[in-house]
Amino acid sequence: MSIQTPRHIAIYGKGGIGKSTTTSNIAAALAEAGHRVIQVGCDPKSDSTTILRGGAELPTVLDSLRDRARKPKLEDISAVGFWGVLCIEAGGPVPGVGCAGRGISAAVDLLEELRVFETFAPDYVLYDVLGDVVCGGFAVPIRDGIADRAFVVTSSDFMAIFAANNLFKAIDKYAPSGGARLGGIIANSLQLDHARGLIDDFAHRTGTEVVGYVPRSVDVAQAELYGQTVIEAAPYSDQAEIYRKLARRVTGDLETRLPKPLNGPDLKDWARDWGDRIFGAERAAAARSA
Amino acid sequence: MSIQTPRHIAIYGKGGIGKSTTTSNIAAALAEAGHRVIQVGCDPKSDSTTILRGGAELPTVLDSLRDRARKPKLEDISAVGFWGVLCIEAGGPVPGVGCAGRGISAAVDLLEELRVFETFAPDYVLYDVLGDVVCGGFAVPIRDGIADRAFVVTSSDFMAIFAANNLFKAIDKYAPSGGARLGGIIANSLQLDHARGLIDDFAHRTGTEVVGYVPRSVDVAQAELYGQTVIEAAPYSDQAEIYRKLARRVTGDLETRLPKPLNGPDLKDWARDWGDRIFGAERAAAARSA
Repeated sequence: MSIQTPRHIAIYGKGGIGKSTTTSNIAAALAEAGHRVIQVGCDPKSDSTTILRGGAELPTVLDSLRDRARKPKLEDISAVGFWGVLCIEAGGPVPGVGCAGRGISAAVDLLEELRVFETFAPDYVLYDVLGDVVCGGFAVPIRDGIADRAFVVTSSDFMAIFAANNLFKAIDKYAPSGGARLGGIIANSLQLDHARGLIDDFAHRTGTEVVGYVPRSVDVAQAELYGQTVIEAAPYSDQAEIYRKLARRVTGDLETRLPKPLNGPDLKDWARDWGDRIFGAERAAAARSA
Repeated sequence: MSIQTPRHIAIYGKGGIGKSTTTSNIAAALAEAGHRVIQVGCDPKSDSTTILRGGAELPTVLDSLRDRARKPKLEDISAVGFWGVLCIEAGGPVPGVGCAGRGISAAVDLLEELRVFETFAPDYVLYDVLGDVVCGGFAVPIRDGIADRAFVVTSSDFMAIFAANNLFKAIDKYAPSGGARLGGIIANSLQLDHARGLIDDFAHRTGTEVVGYVPRSVDVAQAELYGQTVIEAAPYSDQAEIYRKLARRVTGDLETRLPKPLNGPDLKDWARDWGDRIFGAERAAAARSA
């Protein structure tokens, strides 16, 4: 398949929540299905594309711009990963200096300057973006008309939900002037009984939709130890099939939305309510097993 | 006790790692011991001082500056918490707009303008700072001569260690021109067998020191449900005594240092090495119990 213009998809999530794992497995699933894919890591930690490349080092765009007298070429700042996914890491600022989101602007500017979208001709460009602090810098992919649609990866952890709610606020702010709309929520690392109910309820309250449920899986952890996606390491596993389905969903026809984020006090009440419910359920379970 | 000028202490840590819990318990322990204490929450999530105030709402400095025609007064942006700790929340930017660290500068400027350090005459001012992305904004307390010494709260989670290592880089950058030096590492949420060894090893490699070990505790979780520190809710518990000892340590005579952060590849190798070790230990434990 080849579409006229590439579809640009931003995937946000709190650090540590599995957004790079999710994004990389989506990229691998799309590439395996015959699509041309670019993945741009937009996290100062610069390890977004690691499991697409067997764990090898890759200089970041920001480091390359800092270190070189001449403008970097595409081969200086990219690596070809699993099934031909073109991997790029935006990089972060020198710790303690400047804006943490600057790498994203620099990376996108450089890709446009190098005419990568024309020459590599991707079907899909995935941006894997740190969503802890949705400051102006990290909002670049949804703010400036770069991404067509945005997704957020969250677990049932309240801080991940808080980050998702902040992303919703940023989307509402910029969508009217050409920014990205929300594709939906990707529920990740589902393990505990209450996790699915909690995320479904958050989606319901914010007028959004969960587009995929990804269970916690030992296949994922093992694949990562070898620097691989599950699509590569365990292509016949249930988990690989879950990522393939998710990849079709996030790239397919889908109603994008303007979310209705909760305000501060409502979010707090909601979290407290769920906290009580979980605490009560755990006590009941402990009593049953005692 | 009263000292001539207040001691300003910045406590950094990745979000979710327990830095607000740690800072609030230190503040409570100091106040209980008769010191005058201000705690300034420097996390856009604005819940740093919640457990010092029974969970009540507190308008942030940034919100107050945005909402009012007139300059806010001290009573508009502060609340008196447990044992008289003066609680202030810097606040964060509107999601997706501007710099996430701007609240910190705004808060410190306003406190100076209101002459709070002179009129309230604190012995200690604690800054509880989000350490996920040590961009220029969050570096303000260590950069501009505001804090005398900085500590970092970390668990054995690799992302928390990564954030600590980034803080070390920022300290090294600014300390020579009057920025804060490192007081040490606070090891939090110790639960797993390997956690203490891992953090000790990280401290050893970076030429730093662990100033306190705080075990995971059900007392802390229960106290927080009631919007309290352990110092308030369970003053005779072991955990309260651990925080009192930690409070004496971080405020007492202490050799501050310039840390030797690991570079990217070394940190990666170190993490991989520990990952293998933990994975091996878990497999052995599983084999023993099988």
